[in-house]
Amino acid sequence: MSRRKSVSKEWEVRASTLARKTNNLIRDIIQNLQVEPNPEKQLIALSVGDPTTFGNLNPPEQVLQAVRESVDLHTSRGYGPSYGYPEARRAVAQYSAHQGDVSPDDVILCSGCSHAIEMAITVLADSGQNILVPKPGFMIYKTLAEGLGIELKYYRLLPHQQWKIDLEDLECQIDDDTAAIVVINPSNPCGSVYTKEHLSDVLDIASRNKIPIIADEIYEHMVFSGNEFSAISSLSKDVPVLTCGGLTKRFLVPGWRMGWVIVHDRQNVFGKEVRKGLTNLSARIVGPNTIVQRALPSILSLTPQSFFDDVILFIENNAKMAYDMLRRVVGLRPTMPQGAMYMMIEIKMAQLTDIKDDLDFVERLMCEQSVFCLPGKCFEYPNYMRIVLTVPNDILREACKRIDAFCRDHAAQRENIKAVDNFAVTLPADEEVYCENEVPSVL
Amino acid sequence: MSRRKSVSKEWEVRASTLARKTNNLIRDIIQNLQVEPNPEKQLIALSVGDPTTFGNLNPPEQVLQAVRESVDLHTSRGYGPSYGYPEARRAVAQYSAHQGDVSPDDVILCSGCSHAIEMAITVLADSGQNILVPKPGFMIYKTLAEGLGIELKYYRLLPHQQWKIDLEDLECQIDDDTAAIVVINPSNPCGSVYTKEHLSDVLDIASRNKIPIIADEIYEHMVFSGNEFSAISSLSKDVPVLTCGGLTKRFLVPGWRMGWVIVHDRQNVFGKEVRKGLTNLSARIVGPNTIVQRALPSILSLTPQSFFDDVILFIENNAKMAYDMLRRVVGLRPTMPQGAMYMMIEIKMAQLTDIKDDLDFVERLMCEQSVFCLPGKCFEYPNYMRIVLTVPNDILREACKRIDAFCRDHAAQRENIKAVDNFAVTLPADEEVYCENEVPSVL
Ligand SMILES: Cc1ncc(COP(=O)(O)O)c(C=O)c1O
Ligand SMILES: Cc1ncc(COP(=O)(O)O)c(C=O)c1O
Repeated sequence: MSRRKSVSKEWEVRASTLARKTNNLIRDIIQNLQVEPNPEKQLIALSVGDPTTFGNLNPPEQVLQAVRESVDLHTSRGYGPSYGYPEARRAVAQYSAHQGDVSPDDVILCSGCSHAIEMAITVLADSGQNILVPKPGFMIYKTLAEGLGIELKYYRLLPHQQWKIDLEDLECQIDDDTAAIVVINPSNPCGSVYTKEHLSDVLDIASRNKIPIIADEIYEHMVFSGNEFSAISSLSKDVPVLTCGGLTKRFLVPGWRMGWVIVHDRQNVFGKEVRKGLTNLSARIVGPNTIVQRALPSILSLTPQSFFDDVILFIENNAKMAYDMLRRVVGLRPTMPQGAMYMMIEIKMAQLTDIKDDLDFVERLMCEQSVFCLPGKCFEYPNYMRIVLTVPNDILREACKRIDAFCRDHAAQRENIKAVDNFAVTLPADEEVYCENEVPSVL
Repeated sequence: MSRRKSVSKEWEVRASTLARKTNNLIRDIIQNLQVEPNPEKQLIALSVGDPTTFGNLNPPEQVLQAVRESVDLHTSRGYGPSYGYPEARRAVAQYSAHQGDVSPDDVILCSGCSHAIEMAITVLADSGQNILVPKPGFMIYKTLAEGLGIELKYYRLLPHQQWKIDLEDLECQIDDDTAAIVVINPSNPCGSVYTKEHLSDVLDIASRNKIPIIADEIYEHMVFSGNEFSAISSLSKDVPVLTCGGLTKRFLVPGWRMGWVIVHDRQNVFGKEVRKGLTNLSARIVGPNTIVQRALPSILSLTPQSFFDDVILFIENNAKMAYDMLRRVVGLRPTMPQGAMYMMIEIKMAQLTDIKDDLDFVERLMCEQSVFCLPGKCFEYPNYMRIVLTVPNDILREACKRIDAFCRDHAAQRENIKAVDNFAVTLPADEEVYCENEVPSVL
């Protein structure tokens, strides 16, 4: 007989708090949208932060070859240490020398950058504590923290100053329970890239308040001409930084799930506990897949610089074109991004009639023009929308034209508004346009 | 200025409770052992539950080919739904038909079986609740549960009845806070395989007490001649079962990190909450790597039965040989396993002099004979040790001979003890013997 006060007669199995409170804001918003495309127009999804969606951007041959060779190695199939093979960690340390002194022991390999972020948050923050995150910002932080009872506090980015951090607001948000400050640079969704000076200001605040930083640099090096990427860790004198990165965006392989946490701790603030904590946490799911781990040294050293240059030039040209078209559209105010692969666009509701808010805008844009953008609400930032810049140029151009047509149809004052582009772009009939049958997980 | 009662002058960053309490029992024990091999004898590690270690067992060509082809698909690199591609989930559902009715919607793909277990535990159990696990048993449960404040309660397996579950003890352990019963079948470390009758008895207890089951069936189908594998879910009438499985052991690819949770819930006990909870949890690290996901339909359908048969026959022959040698060794009492890839061996301390316990035994066996076995303590089961049966036959034979020599050297009564094998086996000079430079994560 069991030691139960009462034996229940009925089955009742509930999900845990962690499971119930692990929410994917983007998925929840999208699933509640009325997003039926106009059957007369081919769908163009500008919503998914996945550079592989349209098939126009592919990893370089050297990377694919390294993985093919790895598949054939009998040493690429066994368990490695849960924080990663030594050779793979050494390769990441070398690849990350711009972040400051990095030794292989500072590197923990993870199953994608999301997992790196999970490790960084969970090693630093306890239930009841909080972490500071940017607003607007990528929402995986919410998904990961809330279920564990870790509160999110938002600091403002300044929409009229290239989405710089509102430093005063940042410092204001810090309280006795703040376990970490998250800095996303280059930014999703803003496409902003911070200068050394700005990053140093953030470090000063962290230093003054003795708060470690979680640096989300999954878009490292992805900056447009005239901008420079600086790793915040490289500027830190005392503030310990956990930098989260990976192959996902720069190497165009989100599905491969290869990410890492790098521990920067020049003053040995973390002591042994945080490092040991990270090793402990890595034992939970026993490291990322070894096919990619074994290939990592080749991937990181053999990819030619020209590959990176070509991809970023392609994104920058798309950004310029979309910016140039959309800034002339009634009711919209885009920000020209400095890097990453997104553009944030303000929707000036007063200039549009019968559009309630950003959700309404993206729903009706979809119904009428079959163009799908992510509403700002997905980043806790209403009355904006985000578009993705990795889609083929002609498709992006067509999308911008349709957005323009949509805004003209809904303009409060219809006189004197010209189309942004009189040049007719027609999509090739067999063009493969991404259609969301299943909601992908990261948007 | 920040809203802090006090601004700390000194840095002090601690690791979270979750990180500190996520412990890897095996690693902790091993790291504290004095395990220097005898420099005059080549090391033979019988410790790691990784069938790829010696290079003698490899996945079938069909599986490697499916993965090579996947690498070249541009659709194998993007984000999929975080619970897995529909085609991959469909393939797992078909492959798992022996578990009962399984639809693709019942399948959640995970990063290895450890991750599947993490999902199953965390969706069912809240901090303050407990889960029942077998003793001896695989320790990932401890690693995963304790950091989250989920208590482990152990139920006994019966060492003299082929490690069957002590049903009375199992029911005794159930209390009002019990969230799930974990059943590992076939078992690590015992190699036991349960009959339909025995599994039905367990289901009766679960049903009477209204406790769901987590079935760890990562060794499904890996059973020796004369034994039959039954999925516990296939026998359940009302008890909801979360079955955890994956490619790891049967397909000889632990490093690939492909696992799954399958929801069996004929009476709809879980309702929507547990299923939604699992989907929520899958969003945390966004699914397993897509190279293997895309290859999964081919992997599961093209692998010939002869491959599975050959591997299990090899393991069974090793088991028979080791059993036959070790049962004649003074001071040891092995159990002949019925499946999986391990053998548990009782160490009869009274028959050995100057050996304190299982830790002492494995340390000195290593020092003197360069054979490394896992002490029973790694499974919360002192005075036993576990050996792995996937190593090449001649190496296993040599290891058994050395274990015999070691026990004879330490026998309390030295008269009349003959060596178990007079036939001299010499290892080929260039034989690759696995040497543990880094402690692998799963043992
Ligand atoms: C800022 C940011 N961090 C992290 C991630 C997650 O990356 P991964 O796919 O490697 O988990 C993303 C993905 O879009 C992102 O935009
Ligand atoms: C009983 C049992 N469950 C789960 C696992 C973990 O499997 P994976 O490597 O797929 O995480 C193991 C690994 O040894 C095991 O023995």
